[in-house]
Amino acid sequence: MYIHKVQYYETDKMGITHHSNYIRFMEEARTDFLEKMGYGYDRMEREGVISPVTSVSCDFKKSTTYADEIAIEVCVCELSAVRISLIYEMKRGEDTVCIGKSSHCFLNAEGKIISLKRDLPDFYAKMQEILIKE
Amino acid sequence: MYIHKVQYYETDKMGITHHSNYIRFMEEARTDFLEKMGYGYDRMEREGVISPVTSVSCDFKKSTTYADEIAIEVCVCELSAVRISLIYEMKRGEDTVCIGKSSHCFLNAEGKIISLKRDLPDFYAKMQEILIKE
Amino acid sequence: MYIHKVQYYETDKMGITHHSNYIRFMEEARTDFLEKMGYGYDRMEREGVISPVTSVSCDFKKSTTYADEIAIEVCVCELSAVRISLIYEMKRGEDTVCIGKSSHCFLNAEGKIISLKRDLPDFYAKMQEILIKE
Amino acid sequence: MYIHKVQYYETDKMGITHHSNYIRFMEEARTDFLEKMGYGYDRMEREGVISPVTSVSCDFKKSTTYADEIAIEVCVCELSAVRISLIYEMKRGEDTVCIGKSSHCFLNAEGKIISLKRDLPDFYAKMQEILIKE
Repeated sequence: MYIHKVQYYETDKMGITHHSNYIRFMEEARTDFLEKMGYGYDRMEREGVISPVTSVSCDFKKSTTYADEIAIEVCVCELSAVRISLIYEMKRGEDTVCIGKSSHCFLNAEGKIISLKRDLPDFYAKMQEILIKE
Repeated sequence: MYIHKVQYYETDKMGITHHSNYIRFMEEARTDFLEKMGYGYDRMEREGVISPVTSVSCDFKKSTTYADEIAIEVCVCELSAVRISLIYEMKRGEDTVCIGKSSHCFLNAEGKIISLKRDLPDFYAKMQEILIKE
Repeated sequence: MYIHKVQYYETDKMGITHHSNYIRFMEEARTDFLEKMGYGYDRMEREGVISPVTSVSCDFKKSTTYADEIAIEVCVCELSAVRISLIYEMKRGEDTVCIGKSSHCFLNAEGKIISLKRDLPDFYAKMQEILIKE
Repeated sequence: MYIHKVQYYETDKMGITHHSNYIRFMEEARTDFLEKMGYGYDRMEREGVISPVTSVSCDFKKSTTYADEIAIEVCVCELSAVRISLIYEMKRGEDTVCIGKSSHCFLNAEGKIISLKRDLPDFYAKMQEILIKE
């Protein structure tokens, strides 16, 4: 569980959290999630692996605003040899405010797509384990 | 057609345009598109109508970086009494770099969802017209 | 003391935290500071008072990057009837990475500048107290 | 002269352009200015030179909001062997809305500060010329 407290600079003229920021909250929750699993972005980058986002989506259910605390739960919803997808449930108290999804591939230092199964077997195994549990 | 030139502050540590910014480019292209149609956000707000984003998605095809010029074409892809959806094709030269989609509803000053067909008939007619042409 | 952990989306192509973000970290530290003093932005806004920034500055000493934890200390450095100035010392471990300063006035619902001394005497007294201690 | 049109996502809950964004508008105007002089960031980076911001400041005179067009004039106000400072006058129509200032040093690929006079003599000469004209 990751908590993001909405900042004043994240609000807009409508008085609510600007929708683009939820994509950033997802990144915060994702890096926190991967770090807790032992696979922080910095470790990935040290190993010469970068992980671009290939797609992202958000369904907005309720608006939030300055000083709201958004609790974000991250789940692994899809896993293939070359791609992983995550789902983000964002809540303020009992209310679901947003459901997000992101997909990612993994590139080596030459910019070639790598196989998670072959090149990052520990990571793949760990994600497989969580995926099954869901 | 709307052009966004990627700014230095929109890049990230990977050396590319941070993916969250495409959601903002979509908003830029959308407000430009609506303005050209005679329905700028400011006019909407003057008339007491606000238009929150209900969902947003992006498929990233190629990365872009600082100083790239991204040309964005906006199309109306879905229209109902209470909701409109737009598609954004983003290109750098001949290359499609990103395909985005957003959906929007419309609220009156009391925060109630309004019917485009009944309450904004001119706007609805214009969108209907474009939708048909596509 | 307020801690900001640098997010991936706050870095730029140079591999470091984009300089504009420190202005945002200052706002985070300031709202946290005012909240702890019992004068959160939301209370101010409920009381019909808004507090625009009249000037802001930053001296950058060292760069920071993704996942760095920046500890921010806020001090009241100037106080007049109508204006308050704050200083922000930002550190990563023992290293000072940035020194910021911001000045603020206070407006009522009509957009008129209000006197802190007369219209927000409790707040003025509290700030005066801290100012003297420094 | 560089024009920035304020975007919806650059506004905040107060209904105005969030103050942190002016620091970004300054970067936009600066890179445009340097590009027009033949010294775009991309050329600098190709030559292995990066140019971090060492300090930045802004005095806010009037607020701006969504759809405002801000015209930004950039001047070289200080030049030494190792540092350059720029001033930004930002106007909406006849009104000055913000005066900004930024200072920059220049680093080589090893992260060492370089002498503009010795290592980038053409650039230094050009800046000297503008500085004198002011």
